[in-house]
Amino acid sequence: MNLYPAPVAKLIEEFSKLPGIGSKTAQRLAFFVLNMPEGEVKGLSSAIIEAKQKIRYCSVCGNLTDIDPCIICRNTSRDKSLICVVEEPRDVVAMEKTREFKGIYHVLHGAISPMEGIGPNDISIKELISRVNKGDVKEVIVATNPNVEGEATAMYIAKIIKPFGVKVTRIAHGVPVGGDIEYADEVTLTKALEGRTEI
Amino acid sequence: MNLYPAPVAKLIEEFSKLPGIGSKTAQRLAFFVLNMPEGEVKGLSSAIIEAKQKIRYCSVCGNLTDIDPCIICRNTSRDKSLICVVEEPRDVVAMEKTREFKGIYHVLHGAISPMEGIGPNDISIKELISRVNKGDVKEVIVATNPNVEGEATAMYIAKIIKPFGVKVTRIAHGVPVGGDIEYADEVTLTKALEGRTEI
Repeated sequence: MNLYPAPVAKLIEEFSKLPGIGSKTAQRLAFFVLNMPEGEVKGLSSAIIEAKQKIRYCSVCGNLTDIDPCIICRNTSRDKSLICVVEEPRDVVAMEKTREFKGIYHVLHGAISPMEGIGPNDISIKELISRVNKGDVKEVIVATNPNVEGEATAMYIAKIIKPFGVKVTRIAHGVPVGGDIEYADEVTLTKALEGRTEI
Repeated sequence: MNLYPAPVAKLIEEFSKLPGIGSKTAQRLAFFVLNMPEGEVKGLSSAIIEAKQKIRYCSVCGNLTDIDPCIICRNTSRDKSLICVVEEPRDVVAMEKTREFKGIYHVLHGAISPMEGIGPNDISIKELISRVNKGDVKEVIVATNPNVEGEATAMYIAKIIKPFGVKVTRIAHGVPVGGDIEYADEVTLTKALEGRTEI
């Protein structure tokens, strides 16, 4: 059925490719775009293309950036001896929001997952080793996700970095702040007990 | 805080303007776009701008179209004496999906709503009158939404079109097919009773 004029059908199809956008939502977004002022439509269209064209990975840490090295790696007030290893650029954003971490990052772009055929050579572990090998690093904090792949990656990194005489730490597991003990799963509670601190 | 490189921040901001897209979803969409192949990004970007630039309202019925008059108004096999009045272009799509309606449409682009200060002159009622005035129309089916504004609009259209000697009908109210009597509200059930047909 030819329900929509071709440009509208095309727009709905393009929106449907985005994650979490089904055909109904894509249709709603398309009609919304058609009702937007032309200036705003141009803004949206060019923001998409510009983000893709201007953004690349930082050659030092692998984070997303429009200037290389990225703003964090260029910041002289940050502690270059402390590297926080994360899986994805969005994890850098999450860490930065804490305003607590004053070191620099290393983005792996994934985690080791034998199930999906992702080995140590498929993520940026070589690059991490060469950064550690330069000698200025004192501690590597592994902030990969608290799941099977993240833990496996953390173990692998610890095994391979420790021989350089560098301290390797893992972020704490426990009950989330504001969460409910009642709803915490057993594994999390076990980790929370193991990691208990004196008050 | 300067958490994202400027082009990424801009893209997240633009996505956030869309309906039903909060900041978290906008961030997820932005990261997804950054990981898309460049060709697909260009496809999305140009689909947005092209839809906006190529799509206009049909000068006959007010539906969205890239060619004027629209594909439905140009179709010689459709019954030009039967006009279905709807509020929005998306309602045309919903009606077309039934594959039952063989007449043509009239899109009001809204409904009369004194609460929001929308009167008969703010929607395409004048255009409907001039179409009816040309004399070929035998019946006007009012398929505005089954809510207060839609009903008020239907009443107004009936009052103003009937003097032309044209039949004005309203789509039936009743329980939705596949629905549950138990969960139908009283008003719908009352309408369903009133509109009962012999089997």
